Amino acid sequence: MGGERFATRLDGMRRSDVATILKLAEQPDVLSFAGGLPAPESFLIEDYAELEAAVLRDQGRAVLGYGPSAGVSALRETLAARMEHFGRPTVADEILVTTGGIAALDLVAKAYVDAGDIVLVGAPSYLAALHVLRSYQADIVGVPLDDQGLDPDALDTTLRELRATGRAPKLLYLVPTFQNPTGLTLSETRRRRVLELAREHELRVVEDSAYEDLRFEGEAPPRLCALDPERVIHINTLSKIVAPSLRLGWLAARREIVDALVLCKQGQDQCSTTAGQWVAHRFLSEGVAERQIEAAVPIYRERRDVCLAALAEGMPEGTVWTRPEGGFYTWITLPPAFAALDTEALLPRAVAEQGVAYVAGNAFYAAPDGHAGPRQLRLAYSYLGLDQVALGVRRLAALFRVTLDEAREGGR
Amino acid sequence: MGGERFATRLDGMRRSDVATILKLAEQPDVLSFAGGLPAPESFLIEDYAELEAAVLRDQGRAVLGYGPSAGVSALRETLAARMEHFGRPTVADEILVTTGGIAALDLVAKAYVDAGDIVLVGAPSYLAALHVLRSYQADIVGVPLDDQGLDPDALDTTLRELRATGRAPKLLYLVPTFQNPTGLTLSETRRRRVLELAREHELRVVEDSAYEDLRFEGEAPPRLCALDPERVIHINTLSKIVAPSLRLGWLAARREIVDALVLCKQGQDQCSTTAGQWVAHRFLSEGVAERQIEAAVPIYRERRDVCLAALAEGMPEGTVWTRPEGGFYTWITLPPAFAALDTEALLPRAVAEQGVAYVAGNAFYAAPDGHAGPRQLRLAYSYLGLDQVALGVRRLAALFRVTLDEAREGGR
Repeated sequence: MGGERFATRLDGMRRSDVATILKLAEQPDVLSFAGGLPAPESFLIEDYAELEAAVLRDQGRAVLGYGPSAGVSALRETLAARMEHFGRPTVADEILVTTGGIAALDLVAKAYVDAGDIVLVGAPSYLAALHVLRSYQADIVGVPLDDQGLDPDALDTTLRELRATGRAPKLLYLVPTFQNPTGLTLSETRRRRVLELAREHELRVVEDSAYEDLRFEGEAPPRLCALDPERVIHINTLSKIVAPSLRLGWLAARREIVDALVLCKQGQDQCSTTAGQWVAHRFLSEGVAERQIEAAVPIYRERRDVCLAALAEGMPEGTVWTRPEGGFYTWITLPPAFAALDTEALLPRAVAEQGVAYVAGNAFYAAPDGHAGPRQLRLAYSYLGLDQVALGVRRLAALFRVTLDEAREGGR
Repeated sequence: MGGERFATRLDGMRRSDVATILKLAEQPDVLSFAGGLPAPESFLIEDYAELEAAVLRDQGRAVLGYGPSAGVSALRETLAARMEHFGRPTVADEILVTTGGIAALDLVAKAYVDAGDIVLVGAPSYLAALHVLRSYQADIVGVPLDDQGLDPDALDTTLRELRATGRAPKLLYLVPTFQNPTGLTLSETRRRRVLELAREHELRVVEDSAYEDLRFEGEAPPRLCALDPERVIHINTLSKIVAPSLRLGWLAARREIVDALVLCKQGQDQCSTTAGQWVAHRFLSEGVAERQIEAAVPIYRERRDVCLAALAEGMPEGTVWTRPEGGFYTWITLPPAFAALDTEALLPRAVAEQGVAYVAGNAFYAAPDGHAGPRQLRLAYSYLGLDQVALGVRRLAALFRVTLDEAREGGR
């Protein structure tokens, strides 16, 4: 038998670090800041167990069967009400229940992206989103972030440059709040400018709100979907406010778009879990999700605080990092002197010598160069306990200091 | 705002009838033979509830988190043992847990199919599989079935014709046992010939075994994956032997293939339900699935018997249908005199006048013509109770008789 005749899309997908990350996260002896994993302590497992049992009892055998591709009506209505609460008046037909957030983006890409179509993303951007877009052979163009998140001036420039070459991007994907990987939140002013540019260039905007409910402090700017319900496809997940194991997310968009995405879902997984959708419906409508959010926010806030304090204490001079107002991540940029090294090349050493894992900056950029990725990294402070967060950051900081010293000595 | 700039793949996908079928199945007043839905009566809901609770209790909070993309190790091992029982010695690394059977096929298509690649399927073939293949813009070529299932001579001819034009198909997708939609099972002789041809033409074979565990009678021929473990990608689902709501299936293939498919899964839904995988693991390893199969087989056998008896009693002379030895479907071909009509055109009347739904033959063919689809239809006898099966078939037969008379009169 000859070698496998795989599709060409696999070439672009081999770059993905998702597998590596999940494998690192699996090793029990490693302090992993790699995966964006919710704190298990935040799961209301007793409520979950009770609702699971109640759904089987109340709905009976039929709830173990298939459900409609667009989602169970009760959940679609509950999610529509949640969208209204987010500032986007929504009817159930504008909701599509998906098998998590990545599955939602997979559907959007399936519906919109032909090979070679331009999709704009932040640079840096959520690495699993890049993976999805690569699987559809999108021409991914990164728009630089500054310390306030996606830079509308840079977006403007990128759009004008593309227009000058006769190329019209189809989608703009962004995580406007507690961005992955930077933790940054776009201001209302920037949001309005981004949407203006999107309207001017007839660009569809995909807003990924995965972390938005987990705000530690500060005022929430309006969601993009509230500012422009027609133009924005809002993607969300129940992984953070119920549990990842449920494998449920949703998207909200105008009806015509949802109809096309339902068609795509029939070729993706046909329908999401019926019983699970009832659990989600009750989790949301009976106020359990809000209780979980209330319990989760202080956990994550404290972990962020400990993480940032340990960074301040130990990281080499000249290192900068973000101070997220919510969500799971801080984004670290090592001083330019670190450029001779590479956070990617250093990762195996971090794991082997220090028993600490992170995601190297490069993984979050669509292009191989032209960015600070090699001296950047993402830390997810969401998963580890407080002591582990402190210990892990101390170890990591020590490694970076040593490495930087070595580099300076080598450079003499 | 202008019209949506959807991807070109959507053009081919709009033909899908899956949505229509699921909608018909939702109407509570319609006797639906349309969807291939398991009998809710077959679900061991008490065991399911108990195992769900036990998994949360025994595994704790972590089981509500994310899991590895390839699947939870315990389940992969259990499924590997199941594959061994199927005659294919398998290690856990050759197993990929998927979010149901369609999701497994979506991954295979993602990994193998570039736009324009040729994929061979039976004519007729499972309509959702056609939908998946269309979503990757495969050039789908149908190989005719005769009354024994996929015809190896026809496959041989098709392969030689393609080779003569310099085109090499990549995949052959088939449901060798209790085929969807015909219910037919390929003999061992035919299986061996199909695999010989596949080897000769370096064709990867995708075996969909969704119904294989539900055998009413007769001897099971060896699975394709047992006859050629290297060449065959075996796709399977837990929807029939546990429950569709669980959204779990799996595939077994050699390691290199599984690795590529894991990469694809990271862009599809990242991982399948962790807690659900533990439920599945225990369902299988504690013998509950086998108990469910034992309980389910007599239910389906009886429904088939009632369905076939009602067909024999009522259908117009010259109508033929298959007698499946297991699974969910019988496939009906109306007499040539019916050609002036069309089961697709007649479906709204069947629903509106008779309150009965089925799937019209055309939906199962990749090509729009050159087949008997317009006078064919699929009945799934799996879902309705015995009285409903009998009543539904009687009503349907009456409609066909009347329609045929009308056609004959009109033809005079």
